[in-house]
Amino acid sequence: MAGIPEVITRVEMLFSKFPGIGRKSARRIAFYLMNREREDVIAIAKALVDLKDKITHCPICNHITEQTPCDICGNPKRDDSILCVVEDSMDVIALEKSVSFRGKYHVLGGLISPLDGVGPDDLAIDALFRRLEPVKEVIIAINPSVEGDTTTFYLSRLLKDYPLKVTRLARGIPVGGDLEYTDEATLARALEGRLEIPNE
Amino acid sequence: MAGIPEVITRVEMLFSKFPGIGRKSARRIAFYLMNREREDVIAIAKALVDLKDKITHCPICNHITEQTPCDICGNPKRDDSILCVVEDSMDVIALEKSVSFRGKYHVLGGLISPLDGVGPDDLAIDALFRRLEPVKEVIIAINPSVEGDTTTFYLSRLLKDYPLKVTRLARGIPVGGDLEYTDEATLARALEGRLEIPNE
Repeated sequence: MAGIPEVITRVEMLFSKFPGIGRKSARRIAFYLMNREREDVIAIAKALVDLKDKITHCPICNHITEQTPCDICGNPKRDDSILCVVEDSMDVIALEKSVSFRGKYHVLGGLISPLDGVGPDDLAIDALFRRLEPVKEVIIAINPSVEGDTTTFYLSRLLKDYPLKVTRLARGIPVGGDLEYTDEATLARALEGRLEIPNE
Repeated sequence: MAGIPEVITRVEMLFSKFPGIGRKSARRIAFYLMNREREDVIAIAKALVDLKDKITHCPICNHITEQTPCDICGNPKRDDSILCVVEDSMDVIALEKSVSFRGKYHVLGGLISPLDGVGPDDLAIDALFRRLEPVKEVIIAINPSVEGDTTTFYLSRLLKDYPLKVTRLARGIPVGGDLEYTDEATLARALEGRLEIPNE
């Protein structure tokens, strides 16, 4: 288009493919960057390339990391006997933010999805079973989608042969949530998983 | 934080400063980039640096461009006699998209704002007056903010001494807009600028 330098159009096009960014936001970002100092833009460009060059997957848990093993696997204070199995590294970060889990993680790197051609062999499932020796409890913390439920079912069936407890995250009304606005499926799960109020 | 590689945190931090991007979107983008091919990420990084290295300002109209003069100033089909004065290059792009202006532009590069220490000398105002010779009409297409109105007033007072018509963009109800939801100031302007319906 007349009036728009090609380099701007290119940045716009590349950024509009980012998750959650449309064409207009992409243009605003292109202008924002154009008005930043050259060294700032170079720092951003370098940080992007570093994402690809410095990040690997931990050989133990498959979580993203800059060192081997990752800082969770390498932390002697984390409990080896409890292992939380998740779909991807985003889930590890979310759980770490809750500061309520002191065990270790295992990142599958996806979910079983026959429609997308993803089978158990494409996930870090063998690696999971190789590290079960010290483990007393496996928490399967996988989203309740079709693929998630398939994966959970597959794992729990295999784990039955091991002398350990298999658990999943509780489903229920989120903290701060409102009964009135909670969907039926969540309400059903919340009722099903109701807990006794202790007599004091 | 434990569990998040530092390079991810850095990209998150840099991206969350972009206009319209919060911390969570920034993280989603960092993960998106981490999962792209290395060459794609390098292409993005290069495009960012190109923004700084390839873009200059047109010596005639001050619009951003990759060549000198810009493709609007260098286009012999554009009408030299009508000049549209705008705050910045984003405005040129918006007007070009409307495909309804065939004259040329002049980009001020900002607005007069005493509070921010921006005076007329900080804007491309001298350059504007140096190119008025072939001009028969100046359209001042500046947003109606305090700074915008100050700048419009300043320019129109200086332009009075020249043998040319000075106009501004019409204010009114936007196309597709609804009377009921239009703010009072816009309605007042729309009434003020009402046009006679021709008798056929």
